[in-house]
Amino acid sequence: MQIVIALGGNALIKRGQPLEADLQLHNISIAAKAIAELTQENTVIVTHGNGPQVGLLALQAEAYNRVKPYPLDVLGAESEGMIGYLIEQKLLNELPNRQVATLLTQVEVDVDDPAFVHPTKPIGPLYTEAEAKQIATERGWTIAPDGDAYRRVVPSPEPRRIIELSTIRLLVQSGAIVVCTGGGGIPVVITKGAIRGVEAVIDKDLAAALLAIKLNADALLLLTDVDAVYVEWGSPNAKPLSLVTPQELRSYQFASGSMAPKVEAACRFVNATKGFAGIGRLEDAGTILARQAGTIVQSSNF
Amino acid sequence: MQIVIALGGNALIKRGQPLEADLQLHNISIAAKAIAELTQENTVIVTHGNGPQVGLLALQAEAYNRVKPYPLDVLGAESEGMIGYLIEQKLLNELPNRQVATLLTQVEVDVDDPAFVHPTKPIGPLYTEAEAKQIATERGWTIAPDGDAYRRVVPSPEPRRIIELSTIRLLVQSGAIVVCTGGGGIPVVITKGAIRGVEAVIDKDLAAALLAIKLNADALLLLTDVDAVYVEWGSPNAKPLSLVTPQELRSYQFASGSMAPKVEAACRFVNATKGFAGIGRLEDAGTILARQAGTIVQSSNF
Repeated sequence: MQIVIALGGNALIKRGQPLEADLQLHNISIAAKAIAELTQENTVIVTHGNGPQVGLLALQAEAYNRVKPYPLDVLGAESEGMIGYLIEQKLLNELPNRQVATLLTQVEVDVDDPAFVHPTKPIGPLYTEAEAKQIATERGWTIAPDGDAYRRVVPSPEPRRIIELSTIRLLVQSGAIVVCTGGGGIPVVITKGAIRGVEAVIDKDLAAALLAIKLNADALLLLTDVDAVYVEWGSPNAKPLSLVTPQELRSYQFASGSMAPKVEAACRFVNATKGFAGIGRLEDAGTILARQAGTIVQSSNF
Repeated sequence: MQIVIALGGNALIKRGQPLEADLQLHNISIAAKAIAELTQENTVIVTHGNGPQVGLLALQAEAYNRVKPYPLDVLGAESEGMIGYLIEQKLLNELPNRQVATLLTQVEVDVDDPAFVHPTKPIGPLYTEAEAKQIATERGWTIAPDGDAYRRVVPSPEPRRIIELSTIRLLVQSGAIVVCTGGGGIPVVITKGAIRGVEAVIDKDLAAALLAIKLNADALLLLTDVDAVYVEWGSPNAKPLSLVTPQELRSYQFASGSMAPKVEAACRFVNATKGFAGIGRLEDAGTILARQAGTIVQSSNF
């Protein structure tokens, strides 16, 4: 099978962990083991999130005041290098006889996407209400509630086209394990025939769905730190979904920014291809692929 | 012809310019025009420096004190993403019908390379003597004189092997313009069968020579902001070299850190292949390739 894997931010850095390089390296080596097991019998393409990392790069840039902070597209490119490197290195250590190729990826978005007017994607650390107010004033950022805390939000436009798609196809066909479309891809628009970066972050699950659709993959695995999609999450009636159709899944409500994009990505992929999508824990990747763990989204219930 | 181009740091940011994103973007669009002209009749592989950029990333990381600064291999990976993105985007804008592929590249170095004991590679901004002393004490960095000022120096071990070489070959053969081995590649060592990053920066000209040798390229162009290699540079007797053999070129002395690695890279490439090397200005790339500008290094004088 050809599988697109979307590694959640929590596969790189766990909730509450500081964003230290050695912690990420440790977490990624665990993720690499889980992915490596799937590569024996399958063609694997790996994408990943970058929310915390791009947030850190933005904070570091803000902290150094002799050079203007770089725009989010450039920070996204930096994060593709940083995270792609760590994933590639750990995969190579698990699979010394395989080729692993990390490809810089730009993703085209519409210049008039409504997200540019209504930023919603949280990046970077959590702030208290007082900190949030101060930062919003000082830096001109949009800050929004995130659970009991506050966080910077940036535009998250719809991914429309993967600029490097034909190169990704070539690398996949060559037998390489391809790491690409990191952080949802670097957001670019095309105006007057020229590509240019924009201040945005593309949702990595939706970009992974676009990639999986364009590659006509057999499965899209959206891996995180919860074991399944739950209905009534956080209530005493919380119930995991094991096997659902896109139609059923879309009848429920999910938290925007965490489960909702995974659910949307899964539905888009299943509706556009003959493949299935799995949402669940990184450690269960193999069992999810066998449709025996996680939430499996497919076009019929049997 | 198959050509490996090594873009000097000055193609990305000019001497004395602040490291602003928009200035780099402007400079890189000029470089992309020069490179694009060569792609009509030649197969082009682009490598680039990262000294100022990796220095900036290190300073930004130092300035933000809530997360420990990431090691130089990770910063190198970030710089490959950042610079690779800008080069790829500007090349695509010049050549909308071509594929451009930016590949993350690790370069193996020897774990016992003497450079780890004697760091020599300058990165980051210039300091006064007083600043240099303070920074050396505070951060544990090695600081060395650079002209009349001071600069951080880091180990610059010999590049031994390009981990992603077979993927680079595949991409080149597919007709893509490949951007790779950025900043000399991410420095890694292999111990006990595992790859791991090291705190170093590999000289981008020497890494470009290794790449050109392994690809058996026809030409290696080392492009910078001076029009040729000069003997007695800085004296009234300064004289540009137009056509030289490696043997003759190695009989002169050149400034370490600027011209010396270009000269060494050119000599290595010419001695190991049937190709020629050219050293000169970015704007003259086409004329250098025609051996009518710059310093041409080839195995015989005719």
